[in-house]
Order: sequence, then structure tokens, then C-alpha cells
Amino acid sequence: MSSILFCGNERIGVLSPQDRGLAYGDGLFETLLAVDGGLPWWPAHWHRLAQGAQRLAIELPDENTIHQAALSLAVAQPAVVKIILTRGESGRGYLPCDGPATCIVSVHPLPPALPQPLTLHWCRTVVTEQPVLAGIKHLNRLENVLARKECQLAGHPEGLMSDREGRVICATSANVFVHADGQWLTPDVSACGIAGIARGWIISHVGDVRVGTVTRRMAGNAEAAFLCNAVRGIMPVAGIGARRLDQTAALDAMQAFFLAANPFFGNT
Amino acid sequence: MSSILFCGNERIGVLSPQDRGLAYGDGLFETLLAVDGGLPWWPAHWHRLAQGAQRLAIELPDENTIHQAALSLAVAQPAVVKIILTRGESGRGYLPCDGPATCIVSVHPLPPALPQPLTLHWCRTVVTEQPVLAGIKHLNRLENVLARKECQLAGHPEGLMSDREGRVICATSANVFVHADGQWLTPDVSACGIAGIARGWIISHVGDVRVGTVTRRMAGNAEAAFLCNAVRGIMPVAGIGARRLDQTAALDAMQAFFLAANPFFGNT
Repeated sequence: MSSILFCGNERIGVLSPQDRGLAYGDGLFETLLAVDGGLPWWPAHWHRLAQGAQRLAIELPDENTIHQAALSLAVAQPAVVKIILTRGESGRGYLPCDGPATCIVSVHPLPPALPQPLTLHWCRTVVTEQPVLAGIKHLNRLENVLARKECQLAGHPEGLMSDREGRVICATSANVFVHADGQWLTPDVSACGIAGIARGWIISHVGDVRVGTVTRRMAGNAEAAFLCNAVRGIMPVAGIGARRLDQTAALDAMQAFFLAANPFFGNT
Repeated sequence: MSSILFCGNERIGVLSPQDRGLAYGDGLFETLLAVDGGLPWWPAHWHRLAQGAQRLAIELPDENTIHQAALSLAVAQPAVVKIILTRGESGRGYLPCDGPATCIVSVHPLPPALPQPLTLHWCRTVVTEQPVLAGIKHLNRLENVLARKECQLAGHPEGLMSDREGRVICATSANVFVHADGQWLTPDVSACGIAGIARGWIISHVGDVRVGTVTRRMAGNAEAAFLCNAVRGIMPVAGIGARRLDQTAALDAMQAFFLAANPFFGNT
């Protein structure tokens, strides 16, 4: 693993233990698929990072500077490039001050694919509703960490997280789509959850996808379901809790459409 | 500012940019008052850190090792010693693995006292309810950062944060006590908020304190109120929103009792 660090747009050597990203999770991150020496979804990732930086009032570094650093780490083999953007070192205490952000660009081996068949745990750890933080990929991710551990203890590679009212929001490291009554449906993330890049691509490019409330009952009774993220693309779900799900024609069609438009996911 | 870093119980030189404390806020912290070369509330801080580490399943380093490091940084002048404990570097991805924790012990100048008179903003940023994280002082503190910024923009040095149901939980960097109908009352923190060390001392040592629900109306109509934390002790509140509060005899008595038992707060 190698990494490149920036303070604003200037390269720096080491991460300060006073960084607010560490102190308070005061920052954002992006996890990108690097394939064939490129970063195919760069614009969407940068757009979300910029939106998050605007929401948190963190100074965004120069896009080209960070893009070049990320490309320099994107080796030919499929890999994951991670970008962490924090508020930097603007004093001890919660009050955020203006100052250059810290940006860390690093490259990692592609994680192993989720085990097949992909069965999902119903996570007890809820996603808390916090509209001011919803959608953006911020660094306060203890809920995801705890939910992911729950999945492991329950013997599932992933799991579905719900809000306090029992609305399904996401998997621990992916968005979720369910197919019910002939339509694909994915949870609204305006109150909590992350607006995933793969999710956004599907909503924009697939004609008939509805964004709205997905109750546990709806997910539990779905005809088909898949998870998606920007590293693994579409991951068909073979079971939720004790219930088995089939690979339906609708899921076949969704996967084929996605892969045809984003063939780099086939190379990983 | 100087700091001492540990991986488990071994000193290390620099913080890895892969640390999970930075990646996910996967860790805890403590902020201690250092005065006269000592750390008077060390046992209570360590106890809370140990409770948090148990809750998050983070390996706790040796208490004496960290205590000695903290004492070596605690200079004669009043100062703040901060301890950050993270899950260390156990792989990319949310799944936590066993491995040595990272511990960072650092010393900082005592922050300036909050401006007087201390008036409080009603923060719009809510504290989200997450019982699995409630009480412990974890690193997912974006809500506090955003609420503190709100206070500044509203022209107040601090503010009261409530949950979604409008129950007052805390200030952005302190616990709160209100005096109503002849009794001191402080919010329950079993669903959200931090179980502050100064708060805990007061609950344990002052006879007639009730822990329970504090509605906004109750706080808004209180006869007196104070904030408290382990760095500044008791901070009398002179106003909440547009309403002024007096320094009552009950508040005088509380302050006198607290200072007599914890005279080091008088030296800061």
C-alpha cells in the first residue's frame, strides 16, 4: 500500500496526530475502482466529494492535483484507490476553523469478492437519521463497522441496515435494490445512508427505478435483490435472512445492461 | 504540542494514514485536565475509556504505560492531555479485525475559558439516538462539530443539543444541569450523548440530583443551569436563547461544593 498526502494542494510527508479527521471523523472519503491504469468513474466520485466538502464547509483541493495523484497510484491491475479528505488541523476543540484540508490518496489491492451465494443478515445496528449528514460519504462510520461485525458473527458476508422505524436503508458497504411488483426500488437516502455512485448510475441510466421507502417487509418479500457499490458493481443477492431469492430474468437484464455500459467491472 | 504514539503497548513514530481512527472514526478519546504535574481525574477517565473499548471490542493498552506517558506530558501549568484510542490498522473495509490498538497521548494548552456571560444557543443539529454508541466518548463527532459552528454563527459560545423528539441531551462540549422545582436535573444519556466525567462526579457526590428527561421547555424555564466538563468544571449559564438566567443560591452552593472537593479547578 502506498499513499500520497496533501495539505491543501501541497504534498506533505506524514499525517499529523492532530488531524481533525482522526479527532472527530471530521471529513469525507471516496473509494474508487482503478482498472487498466484509469479511474473510470472519477467525475462522479469527485462530484460527491465536492458536495460533501460544501456541506461540511471543508476546503476542496484542486481536482487535477488529486486526480493526477490518484492516477499515479492506479496500477494496471484492478485495485482500489481511496481518497480521504479532512478538515486538516484547525485547532483542538469542536469549533471548525478555516484552513487547508488534508487529503490522503492511497491504493489498495482489490478486496476479495463477497462469498457466493451472497446472503444478507438483518442487522440490529440501526442507521441513525441525520439529514445534515445524509447522502455524503463522511468519516463517521462506526455504525457500519458495528453492523459489519454483526454480519460476520451471524455467518453472513453482508447485511441490511434499517433506520429506527424499520425502513431498509443500505447494506453495510453497498446500496441495495429490490425488485417487487415488476419494478426496481431503492431506498431514499435523504435522511440517512450514503448516495452511492453505482446506485446513482443505475437511477440515472435505468428507465424504471423508483426511489422511495423500502420496508423490511418489502425487502423480505422481494422477487429479487442486488447490492451495488463502485468497487464491485452489481452483486446479486441469494438470500435475505432465512429466505432464498432467485436469479430472475429482471436481475439478469439489470446485470447485463450495467456490464455492457460499464465493462470495466467485468475485468475485476 | 507534543504527542506520544503507541501501537498496542509499543512506542511508534508516526501515525499511519491507514489507521481506522481516521478511516471510520473507529475509536475513542478522553480529554483530561493536567494541573500541577498531575492528572487528578485519571481513574474516572481510564474507566470510561476501558468501557468504551469493551463496547467497541478495541484492545485496551496497559493502563500504567499510557498513564506514565500522559504524566510525562503533563507540565506544571494547567494544560489539557488528550488520549485517542483507535482500533489501529486492521485492514481496509468496515469489518473490524483483532489487532493492537493505536493510542495517541498529546498535550495542549488549556483552551481559553468560555466567554462570560455564558449564553447558550438552541442548536438545530440534533443528537441522533444510537444506544450502542451512547455514553461512550467515541470519535464520530461530526454532530458536535456542526452544532458548535452553529453556535458561533448565532453569536453564542455554546449551545444546547436535543434529540429528534426535542429532549435536551447536552451542550456541544459539555453536559448540562438545570435547576427546576428545587432540584438539579441532568439528561439521561443512555440513548445518546456522552456520560461526562464531571457529570458523573456530580451525580455521585451531590445528594439530590435526578437523571432523566429534560425537555426544551424544562430547560427553557429552569431557575438556573450550568454546563460542566472535565477541563473547565462547572460553568454557570447566564442565558438560554433569549432568556436570561440568574446566579441563584442553589448554583452558588453547587459551585462551592464542587470546588471544595476538586480544588484543582480553581487553579486553572
